[in-house]
Amino acid sequence: MKFKMLYSFLNTDLQLIEKQLEAAIQADSPVLRQASLHLLQSGGKRIRPVFVLLASKFGNYDIHVIKHVAVALELIHTASLVHDDVVDDADLRRGSATIKSKWDNRVAMYTGDYIFARALEVMSHIDNPSAHQILAKTMVELCLGEIEQIKDKFNFEQNWRTYFRRIKRKTALLIASSCQLGAIASSADKEVCQKLYKFGYYVGMSYQITDDILDFTGSEEELGKPAGGDLRQGNITLPVLIAREDPKLRMIIETVHEAISNKEMDIIIKAIKDSGSIEKAAEVSNLYLKKAFAELEGLPSNQARKTLSQIAKNIGKRKF
Amino acid sequence: MKFKMLYSFLNTDLQLIEKQLEAAIQADSPVLRQASLHLLQSGGKRIRPVFVLLASKFGNYDIHVIKHVAVALELIHTASLVHDDVVDDADLRRGSATIKSKWDNRVAMYTGDYIFARALEVMSHIDNPSAHQILAKTMVELCLGEIEQIKDKFNFEQNWRTYFRRIKRKTALLIASSCQLGAIASSADKEVCQKLYKFGYYVGMSYQITDDILDFTGSEEELGKPAGGDLRQGNITLPVLIAREDPKLRMIIETVHEAISNKEMDIIIKAIKDSGSIEKAAEVSNLYLKKAFAELEGLPSNQARKTLSQIAKNIGKRKF
Repeated sequence: MKFKMLYSFLNTDLQLIEKQLEAAIQADSPVLRQASLHLLQSGGKRIRPVFVLLASKFGNYDIHVIKHVAVALELIHTASLVHDDVVDDADLRRGSATIKSKWDNRVAMYTGDYIFARALEVMSHIDNPSAHQILAKTMVELCLGEIEQIKDKFNFEQNWRTYFRRIKRKTALLIASSCQLGAIASSADKEVCQKLYKFGYYVGMSYQITDDILDFTGSEEELGKPAGGDLRQGNITLPVLIAREDPKLRMIIETVHEAISNKEMDIIIKAIKDSGSIEKAAEVSNLYLKKAFAELEGLPSNQARKTLSQIAKNIGKRKF
Repeated sequence: MKFKMLYSFLNTDLQLIEKQLEAAIQADSPVLRQASLHLLQSGGKRIRPVFVLLASKFGNYDIHVIKHVAVALELIHTASLVHDDVVDDADLRRGSATIKSKWDNRVAMYTGDYIFARALEVMSHIDNPSAHQILAKTMVELCLGEIEQIKDKFNFEQNWRTYFRRIKRKTALLIASSCQLGAIASSADKEVCQKLYKFGYYVGMSYQITDDILDFTGSEEELGKPAGGDLRQGNITLPVLIAREDPKLRMIIETVHEAISNKEMDIIIKAIKDSGSIEKAAEVSNLYLKKAFAELEGLPSNQARKTLSQIAKNIGKRKF
């Protein structure tokens, strides 16, 4: 079943959110228009707004309140994508950035800032201090996750704990907060808010691990870039950490460096794929999914719960 | 009289704010420690917190509420300084950035993001939706100002209106908001909040124009960089816009480009200084100051009002 089919009953509300997203970043600057394009193209699934809306169904669902939360969270996600596009030195050294894109480096940074600020503006319609605290804390963690990821590039000494903390900060917390803030803004029971937060957290962890697996197993066509791109860029993900436990594999993995040739890289990627570490990483992802399902069981049984469960199943099975 | 002497009665409260500023960005990352250094070194005056505290004196002054506003605004200012340090292409092309500083480019960006997020976390203690709305709008404008400044580099077609809009966004609004939010968070009368906002706006405009003048008239020792740095970097400020009204000067000003030699640049700077445009720009700055004083006259007469007036006078007279 297609992802979007799972929540077609939200279509009208999601269309409203789509309009508000576009309206929020209207500005007569070309770069800002480019960013809107990024916004529209990057996240067809609008997974964060979907989680916000579904979580709100456990309280007093009012789209005209909840839309602010959904739009704010999607804008924060978008701003972080825009900042991800800011070229770093590594890219510059490889010469892969055009002069034009370099010229736009600071502009891209301020565009991300601008979208962040718009997110806050939208969120300021929510009159609930604890919602603002949760969002601010999530953003703090998100930034720490980004800084860690840069610091940990090509650091082969990192362990599972480092990896889990990083994907928690980079991905899982924003999904957890989407669920939690949807519930809080619709005045759901405290216990329900907490369970939804945990559900989002576990789903987010599973989602990111799956993403990191697909970076190895996906075809160039599916990924839009050659497989193994994470490792190539020095991002050490779970399949690599598992493969590295074999001393022989460890030796060849640690030869990876920025200027490695495609031929050498292909050999290393194949070795990781053949080692069984992909399957083991998938097991870890499934463990998180199971924890997510367990949280759902404690929630009132309704259509939203059913849909959250289906989305989680879909995340487990997705191929790209 | 020294700047800080003007508000020595705020010393205890300012020391508290200093501690909270340090606490807010504590983290065990070296880059974040560097940013804290930036924070501590850059703003000895803490002009934004000072304005917040003084404005709060017109309402129910409670340092344990108001400190959140003061710290948040100073953090936002600091984050914007950190983002200003992100190297753009122009710097790269000139080769002035070391590999190390280039490597830290993205890290500096995320550090700025982190400080922004910390600011929001601090601000979330304020239970007043309109305060959050004002802050978010100010941040939106700040970003637009930064984007405009980059876009308008070496654009000799811009006019006074463009310049005023840019310095409003880049500088004046944050000072205006500091005054306004201090007043709002201490529940001052609506009219008082409005007057303080306008006072801050006019002072901020005057402050920035003076800054732009000092960039021409200051010595290399005072500025910590050669005079005329703004124009050298393509930032067209009021003295340049005034000088450009003379067709002869216009011709030589428009020869300025990124790779101009110091010798050529010195001739152009001297021509601008000799043209009388510095004095005319100072008149404009003074006009804004007069408007600021006029706003103060409508406020209750108290020590805070007296101090705001003295600070404004000081801004008019400052030499660097």
